[in-house]
Amino acid sequence: MPVKNISVHTPHQGLFNFTQQVATVVRETGLREGLCTLFVQHTSASLVIQENADPSAKRDLERWLNRLVPERDSLYTHTLEGADDMPAHIKSALTATSLAIPIVNGQLALGTWQGIYLWEHRRHGGQRSVVIHIGN
Amino acid sequence: MPVKNISVHTPHQGLFNFTQQVATVVRETGLREGLCTLFVQHTSASLVIQENADPSAKRDLERWLNRLVPERDSLYTHTLEGADDMPAHIKSALTATSLAIPIVNGQLALGTWQGIYLWEHRRHGGQRSVVIHIGN
Amino acid sequence: MPVKNISVHTPHQGLFNFTQQVATVVRETGLREGLCTLFVQHTSASLVIQENADPSAKRDLERWLNRLVPERDSLYTHTLEGADDMPAHIKSALTATSLAIPIVNGQLALGTWQGIYLWEHRRHGGQRSVVIHIGN
Repeated sequence: MPVKNISVHTPHQGLFNFTQQVATVVRETGLREGLCTLFVQHTSASLVIQENADPSAKRDLERWLNRLVPERDSLYTHTLEGADDMPAHIKSALTATSLAIPIVNGQLALGTWQGIYLWEHRRHGGQRSVVIHIGN
Repeated sequence: MPVKNISVHTPHQGLFNFTQQVATVVRETGLREGLCTLFVQHTSASLVIQENADPSAKRDLERWLNRLVPERDSLYTHTLEGADDMPAHIKSALTATSLAIPIVNGQLALGTWQGIYLWEHRRHGGQRSVVIHIGN
Repeated sequence: MPVKNISVHTPHQGLFNFTQQVATVVRETGLREGLCTLFVQHTSASLVIQENADPSAKRDLERWLNRLVPERDSLYTHTLEGADDMPAHIKSALTATSLAIPIVNGQLALGTWQGIYLWEHRRHGGQRSVVIHIGN
């Protein structure tokens, strides 16, 4: 079972923790040691490992990036798909499209405070597709 | 055939779509499922997955990053290699040096609107070297 | 030997070259071709490939990111863990948590000027944990 598709529900802009969905796929392989690689199939959403403890860190991160990459910047010419579309592409370029996490003792080798997040950059999210590859 | 070197032609600063070069390497392996990892061997060029449909998205992204990381910033002390050198290092650090894309049904599992780009950050590009690893 | 943990000493904020530690792990596997994936187990430190020749490039990069993501920004609400904590999370999100480098001829396929750095984003660093996966 090297490759599997999962869908992450993103009802609005922001970070959504989907660590448990990934952990389930890893567990089902039964692999003790290996590498889990995630790839998001979109150019207006991305992947990020962030603190999973205090929700204020997540909120500040979202607000900071929204301030760095605001909507309705006069620089944008790509505006037909909505005011949030071009900022979403820029935010995606500044964050990760793929992420690799080692597997140790049958589990994702995340640090104590690390969670895996889908970062939805559009105002109205939906379902985002992530491809998971598990290798040994 | 796990590792192969390709050269991407970058005649000037900007994003260059080289999806077809990568797809050819994947096809030649005959592998049905696996992982394709790209690594750019430079510190003044990087990798990015971006929208492949409307060229205005690509242009806005280039212009936005050029505004965020301008040339001739008084902060720079590393200036001997040209006014575009230090911005190129910063842009590389903010984007990706390596990217991993799963292989499904013998093809790169890219989303509908995703293309693989070499982002040349120097004003005068040239040939950029990308190492491709294909694993199962 | 697919997965190994190493510790990188980061006595203060900034970039620390740990290419030799990674090269040693690769050499010990005896693998001629493959892929070396690094994963940092923290949300306030990250990974970056940067120029290993002129230290001024490294210093300018550190100063530039400190200016982009300053401490004591009035936007931050996540402040209980210190003035350098929220900037550290943001800097981590903008740079890499995982990095993959192909192995060719038994060695990391780095470009001539590329070094592998642990970027410590906290003022007082310490020991940072990096998980290394080696695959073929």
